[in-house]
This record gives sequence, C-alpha cells and structure tokens, in this order.
Amino acid sequence: MITVFSDAHALHDGKAELHDGKLVTSFEMPRRAALVLSRVTEVGLGPVIPPSAFGLDPVKRVHAPDYVDFLAGAWDAWVAEHGAYDALPFTWIAPGMRRVVPDHIDGKLGYYSFDAGTPITAGTFQAVRAAADVALTGAQLVARGERGAFALTRPPGHHAHRACYGGYCFFNNAAIAAQALRDTGAERVCVLDIDYHHGNGTQDIFYDRGDVLFVSLHADPVQEYPYFLGFADETGTGAGEGANANYPLPFGTGFEAWSAALDHALARIAAFGAEALVVSLGVDTYKGDPISRFRLDTADYPTIGGMLAGLRLPTLFVMEGGYAVEAIGVNAVGVLQGFEAAA
Amino acid sequence: MITVFSDAHALHDGKAELHDGKLVTSFEMPRRAALVLSRVTEVGLGPVIPPSAFGLDPVKRVHAPDYVDFLAGAWDAWVAEHGAYDALPFTWIAPGMRRVVPDHIDGKLGYYSFDAGTPITAGTFQAVRAAADVALTGAQLVARGERGAFALTRPPGHHAHRACYGGYCFFNNAAIAAQALRDTGAERVCVLDIDYHHGNGTQDIFYDRGDVLFVSLHADPVQEYPYFLGFADETGTGAGEGANANYPLPFGTGFEAWSAALDHALARIAAFGAEALVVSLGVDTYKGDPISRFRLDTADYPTIGGMLAGLRLPTLFVMEGGYAVEAIGVNAVGVLQGFEAAA
Ligand SMILES: [Zn+2]
Ligand SMILES: [Zn+2]
Repeated sequence: MITVFSDAHALHDGKAELHDGKLVTSFEMPRRAALVLSRVTEVGLGPVIPPSAFGLDPVKRVHAPDYVDFLAGAWDAWVAEHGAYDALPFTWIAPGMRRVVPDHIDGKLGYYSFDAGTPITAGTFQAVRAAADVALTGAQLVARGERGAFALTRPPGHHAHRACYGGYCFFNNAAIAAQALRDTGAERVCVLDIDYHHGNGTQDIFYDRGDVLFVSLHADPVQEYPYFLGFADETGTGAGEGANANYPLPFGTGFEAWSAALDHALARIAAFGAEALVVSLGVDTYKGDPISRFRLDTADYPTIGGMLAGLRLPTLFVMEGGYAVEAIGVNAVGVLQGFEAAA
Repeated sequence: MITVFSDAHALHDGKAELHDGKLVTSFEMPRRAALVLSRVTEVGLGPVIPPSAFGLDPVKRVHAPDYVDFLAGAWDAWVAEHGAYDALPFTWIAPGMRRVVPDHIDGKLGYYSFDAGTPITAGTFQAVRAAADVALTGAQLVARGERGAFALTRPPGHHAHRACYGGYCFFNNAAIAAQALRDTGAERVCVLDIDYHHGNGTQDIFYDRGDVLFVSLHADPVQEYPYFLGFADETGTGAGEGANANYPLPFGTGFEAWSAALDHALARIAAFGAEALVVSLGVDTYKGDPISRFRLDTADYPTIGGMLAGLRLPTLFVMEGGYAVEAIGVNAVGVLQGFEAAA
C-alpha cells in the first residue's frame, strides 16, 4: 500500500491546549505522524510518496471560502494584535447571540471555532494545506485504481465543520478526499469514521447529501467530546436523509461490542452501494489512550483492517486521532496490514 | 445613599482566565469589591447594610431553572471528575451542532457558557447567590421609596444570559433587580448599562418584553467582547420591539462622544416613561482600564451621576465591571456622589 506523507505537518506544532481547566502540552503533536511514518517504513508497508499540489479549490468544495480565507490570515492577524505566540480563542456565540463576523481577531477566532484546545501557530496554515494535498493525492491513487492507499495526514480533520475548526482539526481531510472521489467519477462514496470521537465535521459537511454516506463509531456524545453531535437519531436531512449513521458507544467499550457495531455499519455501507470508501482512521480507541475511554487492544487493529477489506471497495485511509504516542504507529499501521492481508 | 454589600462575594475567587491565548490571573478579583466598599466608607456615602435572603425564586424569574440548578451543582460535579481546582469550559456548540445537555460536566460547562474566561470555584455559587440578594435588597430599598441605592454586587452580572454564563457573570444581578421592581409594583422599568462592554445578558433576558427598556452604551461589538451582540440595529422583538437601544462606540471614545450618546439615551429613557431605573454601573470605561479602550477620566464619573439624577427616577445602581483596581473605588463612588449631589 502506498503511503502519502508530507514533512510540512511538523509546521503545525501547538504549545498548549485548554484541557480539564488547565493549559497542558498539546496532545496532538508532530511526533504522532513521525511515529506512524516510522512504523510504515519498519514493516515495509510500501512506498512513501510526497503529495501533489492541488491548491485550495478542492478544499473549498467542502469548506466555506470565507473560512478558508480566515485560516489563511489568522496567524498574521493574531500576531499583529497579540504577538508571535499560539492563538487560542476565548469566547464563542451563545444562544441568542448573532452570527456576525467580527473585525477583531479574537472575535473571529470565536466565530470560526468551537473549542479552546486547538491552537493556531505560525505554520498551521501551511501544515493544513499540506494535509489536504496528502488526502487529495491519496484520493487520486484510489481513483486511479489502487485497492488501498494511506493518507498520513496531520493535523487530523474529522472535527472540522464546513466553516468551523476545533478538536485539533482545521481542514477536513477525509471530507476533502471523499468530495474529490465524487468529483473524479465515483457516483456514491462512503466515509467510515472509526476514530474514538464522533466525526462531527464530516457529518456536518455531508448531512444534507445523499451521494456521500457518513458512518461513525464513537464514544457517546452524552459523555464525550464533541458532546453536541453524534447521536443515533441523526440520520441526515433532505436529500441526505438515511445517509448518516451514528453508533454511539459507552465509556469502557471493548472490541467485542465495538466490532459488533462495525459489523452492523459494514452491512449498511454494503447496502448503500458506494464505489469508494474513505476511512477516518483514528486509533484513540486504544485502551492506553490518555484522553479516551475505549478498551481496544493492539491485536484488534489488524482484525479491523481485515473487516474493512471485506467490503471489497477501493479504500483510502486518512489518519485522524490517536494520542498514546508510543502505540500510535503499531496500531494505525496494524489496520493497514490487516487490510492488505485480507484484500 | 445606602450601600448593600455582602462579604460572601470573596468566596468567588478565580485563579485564572483564558485571555489573549494565555491563562492569566483573573482580572475579576475580590479586591475590586473591597476597594469600592472602602471608598464608600471613606467618603461617607451613607450606611452599609447586609442583604436580606430572598432565595432563588426571584432569580428564576429571569434565569432558566435548569441553568440555576446547573450552577448550584457545577463545582461538585467538576471536583468529582477532575479534582478541587477551578472549572473552565473548553468546548462549545458550533453551528450545525445540537443544543442538548450532556451528562458529562465538561459538556455541561460548554452548554451553559460562552467563554473560557469565567472560572467556577468552590465558593462561586454562594457568592452569586449573595450578589443576587444584594441586588434584590437594593431593589427593595428603591421600591420602598429610596431615591437611590447602591447594590455593591460581585461577581458582576450583565453578561449572564437567561441560561448561559460568561464575561465573569453568572446571575444577572441587574436583570434580577429590574424584574423584582416590576414584581413589586413598577409598571415600566429601565435598565441603563454604562459598563464598557455590551450588556448582552440583560438584552437577552428582556429582548421580547415591552415592560423593561434596555439601553446600553458600550464598545462596538465588531471590535470588542462580547462580539456577537450589541449592535445598533438590535431594537427588540415582538412585544419588546422598540424597547432595546444600543449605542456602540469605537475604541478610543472619550467623554465628549460618550456623554453625547448618554444624552441621547437619557432622552429615550425619559420618553419610555419608566417608573424606576436600574443602572448597570461598570467603570471599565476608565482610560486606565487594563482590558478596555475608552478614555473616560476620574473627573467624568460624578458628571455622569449628575446626568443620571436628571431623570428624576428612583434609581438602583448595580456594580458591574472595572478592572483598573486602584481606581475602581474612586470612579464608581464618584458616579454615586455626583448622583447624590444632583438628586
Ligand atoms: Zn479522536
Ligand atoms: Zn465590562
């Protein structure tokens, strides 16, 4: 399996996030991608190639142009106001407030975000552009006939809404890839999100569309971030009615219950008739993850890969979360190895 | 003029707030109220009395019962999850997310708040209850015939919505007092907010009501917190159409422009036919305020008091912001002295 990777991910290197009421070292750090890449090489998964440059047009197919422009200029505006250190928003839009774009960067940050855990740094925009290119290059490989490909994206993307960042995510790499697959010929595409957290951004982007099925297995939002999306009764709207499926699972979920939900999800995907599959590959389902509460084990990840291969679809894996840094490589690449073995 | 004051304010003593991307010492600190009280005594403004206990029923006249219950239990829920240190929310509801109350305290904090600058501490609920009692005691004094009274409330209240906290505010003391004045006989009440920041919470609470006029002079939200409310075109809705008036003013506004806006506001209030006036008295309009950008001087505050007295209404002053701590006493009490001299 080909892996697409860009060193530019390391340009996004946040110092701190607001977590449990404190500013703590960012869980989402460059070492995560470096260790996944090491493991790709170590096990000889296949070639590692750099991304092609696609520009921002395919990004704007799923993100609002004003949001893209905001991200492009956010760091400079922040530095002009506050100085050259990481930008964090501190205020948001309460019920009863108005959705108007402020002039001041502090207001803009709140307008376009939904948490205080996602710093914007000097290199953030370069890194998120590179990640989109990584995802788009992976989508191109799959569109051109690869059975599977791995977009080793960082920062992750699945929490990013059409016009809002958060959860360490800015551009929704998986959604950008899924849209690119649609735009290059696939009539129907599925995004399957197996990150521990609900893929609220991906759901938001495709919620009213019937051509992209979004399926997510995740911690129940009543207990876990992102709290305000990811419930089982969210089934899509308008043309998208029936094309959204959430599997919220309780704290402590182990592989037996998790894989039963995946079986159910795979049956839905098969019934949908997708021509391509994008997998939002988070491995924060791992029992050792510092911010998550599922109990999957390292041996489970190749099994998951094998189950995904059973769909017999051209499949793009897009890297999402996973914060047990020492285990992230083995677990993420384990899914890919399992897929390869069964494909 | 009688001042109502409770030592319980000091039980709310946040360590830090997220400000300019960093956790910094809370600007809203117990010393603020202590210095205002000192100045009240120093100039012999009049008697200082403790509040009576009114319970939570008058609070629930303007705040949602579930919000009040949340605040009552937030600290214990936070300690059970995280430990005994200040609670700060870290995630909020993005556009496209759902307004559902999570089970987890971190989700609840986001649901019921709109910023990361307003810590909940061990004594917060006791302090905000006491502040409501201070405001209600002041309202009672005015209802019983006092020409003016001073509710030396802390924490402040004007940013608190019907069901949302933020901006250092939890219970909206001024709104609670205005409602109490309505409930004890005044047919029409006005809340005039002269804090540097828009009184978004007070506006939210009374926006659809014609019996309470809300008028606010403040920094233009396009440039300043709370960013998403306080524009000139917000004039009320339904029965409240015409009973909301905002005067957004640019950074750098000095007394000449500010007092011209106040003159205009006072004419509106006179035309409304209010039987009582509640003044949200913030003095962060002061040129030395560390988080604000107006240019009022100490000599201007008695002038303001005199202008307010010209309305010839029973008037309750409710303390809001002011973060130039050394000057807060002189400036806030200066308004009251100017009022007394002209009344
Ligand atoms: Zn995750
Ligand atoms: Zn203020």
